[in-house]
Amino acid sequence: MSPLTLTLLSAITCCSLAEQSSNVSPPNIIIMLMDDMGWGDLGVFGQPSKETPNLDAMAAQGMLFPDFYTANPLCSPSRAALLTGRLPVRNGFYTTNAHARNAYTPQEIVGGISQDEILLPQMLKKKGYVSKIVGKWHLGHRPQYLPLENGFDEWFGAPNCHFGPYNNSNRPNIPMYNDSEMLGRYYEEFKIDKKTGESNLTQIYLLEGLDFINRQTEAQRPFFLYWAADATHAPVYASKRFLGKSQRGRYGDAVMELDYSVGQILSKLYSLGIENNTFVFFTSDNGAALISAPDEGGSNGPFLCGKQTTFEGGMREPAIAWWPGHIEEGTVSFQLANVMDLFTTSLALAGISPPDDRIMDGLDLTPSTPWTGHQPIFYYRGNELMAVRLGQYKAHYWTWSNSWMEFKNGINFCPGQEVPGVTTHTQKEHTLQPIIFHLGRDPGEKFPIRSYLDVLSRISPVVEQHKNNLVPGLPQLNMCDVAVMNWAPAGCEKLGKCLKVPKSDPWKCDWPH
Amino acid sequence: MSPLTLTLLSAITCCSLAEQSSNVSPPNIIIMLMDDMGWGDLGVFGQPSKETPNLDAMAAQGMLFPDFYTANPLCSPSRAALLTGRLPVRNGFYTTNAHARNAYTPQEIVGGISQDEILLPQMLKKKGYVSKIVGKWHLGHRPQYLPLENGFDEWFGAPNCHFGPYNNSNRPNIPMYNDSEMLGRYYEEFKIDKKTGESNLTQIYLLEGLDFINRQTEAQRPFFLYWAADATHAPVYASKRFLGKSQRGRYGDAVMELDYSVGQILSKLYSLGIENNTFVFFTSDNGAALISAPDEGGSNGPFLCGKQTTFEGGMREPAIAWWPGHIEEGTVSFQLANVMDLFTTSLALAGISPPDDRIMDGLDLTPSTPWTGHQPIFYYRGNELMAVRLGQYKAHYWTWSNSWMEFKNGINFCPGQEVPGVTTHTQKEHTLQPIIFHLGRDPGEKFPIRSYLDVLSRISPVVEQHKNNLVPGLPQLNMCDVAVMNWAPAGCEKLGKCLKVPKSDPWKCDWPH
Repeated sequence: MSPLTLTLLSAITCCSLAEQSSNVSPPNIIIMLMDDMGWGDLGVFGQPSKETPNLDAMAAQGMLFPDFYTANPLCSPSRAALLTGRLPVRNGFYTTNAHARNAYTPQEIVGGISQDEILLPQMLKKKGYVSKIVGKWHLGHRPQYLPLENGFDEWFGAPNCHFGPYNNSNRPNIPMYNDSEMLGRYYEEFKIDKKTGESNLTQIYLLEGLDFINRQTEAQRPFFLYWAADATHAPVYASKRFLGKSQRGRYGDAVMELDYSVGQILSKLYSLGIENNTFVFFTSDNGAALISAPDEGGSNGPFLCGKQTTFEGGMREPAIAWWPGHIEEGTVSFQLANVMDLFTTSLALAGISPPDDRIMDGLDLTPSTPWTGHQPIFYYRGNELMAVRLGQYKAHYWTWSNSWMEFKNGINFCPGQEVPGVTTHTQKEHTLQPIIFHLGRDPGEKFPIRSYLDVLSRISPVVEQHKNNLVPGLPQLNMCDVAVMNWAPAGCEKLGKCLKVPKSDPWKCDWPH
Repeated sequence: MSPLTLTLLSAITCCSLAEQSSNVSPPNIIIMLMDDMGWGDLGVFGQPSKETPNLDAMAAQGMLFPDFYTANPLCSPSRAALLTGRLPVRNGFYTTNAHARNAYTPQEIVGGISQDEILLPQMLKKKGYVSKIVGKWHLGHRPQYLPLENGFDEWFGAPNCHFGPYNNSNRPNIPMYNDSEMLGRYYEEFKIDKKTGESNLTQIYLLEGLDFINRQTEAQRPFFLYWAADATHAPVYASKRFLGKSQRGRYGDAVMELDYSVGQILSKLYSLGIENNTFVFFTSDNGAALISAPDEGGSNGPFLCGKQTTFEGGMREPAIAWWPGHIEEGTVSFQLANVMDLFTTSLALAGISPPDDRIMDGLDLTPSTPWTGHQPIFYYRGNELMAVRLGQYKAHYWTWSNSWMEFKNGINFCPGQEVPGVTTHTQKEHTLQPIIFHLGRDPGEKFPIRSYLDVLSRISPVVEQHKNNLVPGLPQLNMCDVAVMNWAPAGCEKLGKCLKVPKSDPWKCDWPH
């Protein structure tokens, strides 16, 4: 055990994230990352249909983070940030094709996670961790970008979103992988019935997770499970047993099945007797996709707008930490925290120093560090710093929901909400006079504060320092090409599922949001 | 014990409101009614600042009602409905001065609770209950309308809202009463510092409640405590100990002190050993007053608009039932229920038949009645049926937030929210084509459902039956007169606090909302 680990563990006290450690072996780490699940989708965060008894119990046994954030209001950059501990603008998961645009990894994307980045499972290897990702990867689907090339030992899941079905002629169906070879494709071997919403995928992901936990426990090897189920991303799905069970339709059914799965995973830890040696964190990749509401979108509770936006509804996430015997039961932490902290915190728990050759954005959520509660939250869209939260104050330097053209065509990221001058349909700059909200008094960002010079005098230096130190990474999400789609993933030959690869014809991707 | 009581008690089974009764003496009843507190103000209902540990614990020990309603989006009619078990349009707590207006009991109101109405404490007397109201009365302040004239044995509190301070010349300060005589006036003997928000009133109300519980327990008499604290109604207040403690300012401070008080009251029941013989219900009179947000208004969570409106934000209320040994711990009831049910349920628990000479709107929430879960919710504004909820569906027959004129002057009951054609600033009739929402999928009333003929075919007969059976009560809130203000309340002579009564000059009250 390194001196750092000793410092961290000895500094752990009551009511902080990790309260004590009587065990010298590094804890197992499970990060459960939901897809498009909103802050308001959990009972404990106020969902009126109260369909998450297992997550509510997890919170009652652990620590709730009402002020937890993602690093980007869209899935790919958010996931890249979690696994690198760095903002997308640093790790390259952004675009410069247009101003302040969200980009991700559809099938035509040429790029993926940069080989210069160091991912969490790569770091955890230093202490002998075995790592598995179950579910959605989303950091690039070309061979060099896949999980087993980037530190994971095992993978069961898909590289992209489960959109489809496609005709396999101008667009292939998304492959499902087992480790480094494809097993089949969505809508073919892995069914999703878009009419009924039925799919067994969450059950499969659950079994894959449980099996991994079983095997590593038996082998007495510390493990990292990144459980990235995607049932709450449109098209939302649930297995037969859960369909029709929620008061709010298919989306709620998907939540119920995910909640059930969380309960099964925690039960497994208890039954294996490893609950005191397994740190579990539950959160989501971005806010609920209100564009898919109400049938296939979740709830951001009292927060403004949703996915794709840098309002609270786009970036505030449900978050629960659980570690019996180490995290005090039923506690609430108002610490400002985010998905990148999971990188650094995981390393701290494993007793590994974070990379020191680059700027890291994640912080260790254990209490040994002096900045606890005071880190700023940066809200980016592409390479533009749209807003900053410091303490209870959030300053918007740019506002944009989506374009007038799209809005008029029915794309609305803020349905039923309209805060004058805030939910703008043109990109509006407020650099000289930021719009400031007090998120404690006004979590819904509806009442800009009036006299704010003293607030600004505290936020401005933080922003200035951040911008001065910023060296943007090479943008990985600028180029698209039909030739890079999932035509012929590794393993397709054995399955007879290789498709003809069209001629390469790259273009600058169009990112409308 | 009457045969009815036996039936009720024997029908009580697991997981329903009241699960068993091993005690033959009727239970004590405590109804805690908050003022302008919103659904989203409790941690358990998703308040991000999580400042209600005692209420959250009460829910964990009891039963949560996410689908609980008031009978009117304004305080006086809501309170009249609770205490009579009847809709305001029946009990007379409404106006006909203009179409679809909310009315209440300011100082100039001539009317009050009709002598034809039967109040809960009057009924409970039949079984020997002693009843006390602590806090805000609001059913009329002229002598004949006061609590001790209407069934209560004790009162500590005020007849009207704690607005002020007034100059006592054209408008007197509101009196505080102890039983039937005034003790002083707000802003005089009973301080509220509007600048700092400091007032000891909640502490006083707490002590009054505890003292009553102590005395009745000692005397071994069943009691009804109606604890109607008003700290969350603007001007919101808290005592020094709580000021500045919440993340969301003064409003949250008030919530924290009320939460503390709830905890103290429940602790008292435990320490007296009467927790198994005391039914406690916590709720609020109407939705959070968004007009006072963010500094002095609460949160309606994901619901649309707030106080004064017949959208969910105006009428959905936080609600928790608590009765150790009788109500199963940590349960959630999706029963559609409302404040008028507290009347009938209280009578059922006491073993008293409700009045049979009039239409009652309250239903017994114990499970012996067959309609459980299927009662409609009626949303009135004045004498107009604005909307009806049946199951998950809500049909709006009329929409109105507030007038354009007021809206343009800064009065906005739906700040930051705008659902086209729904949050209207003119009174808009939709009788022939109601706007229908599925509140399970869309609690925020943002996505009107499109094909709804089958839904309407179920709602229409319910509405028709309701309207056919409706005999509106004589409206009590039509006339105003400066002569009826609190110039010379009973007891003023002793205190030397009588003010000169001006000449009577009645007018038709103006109800703008």
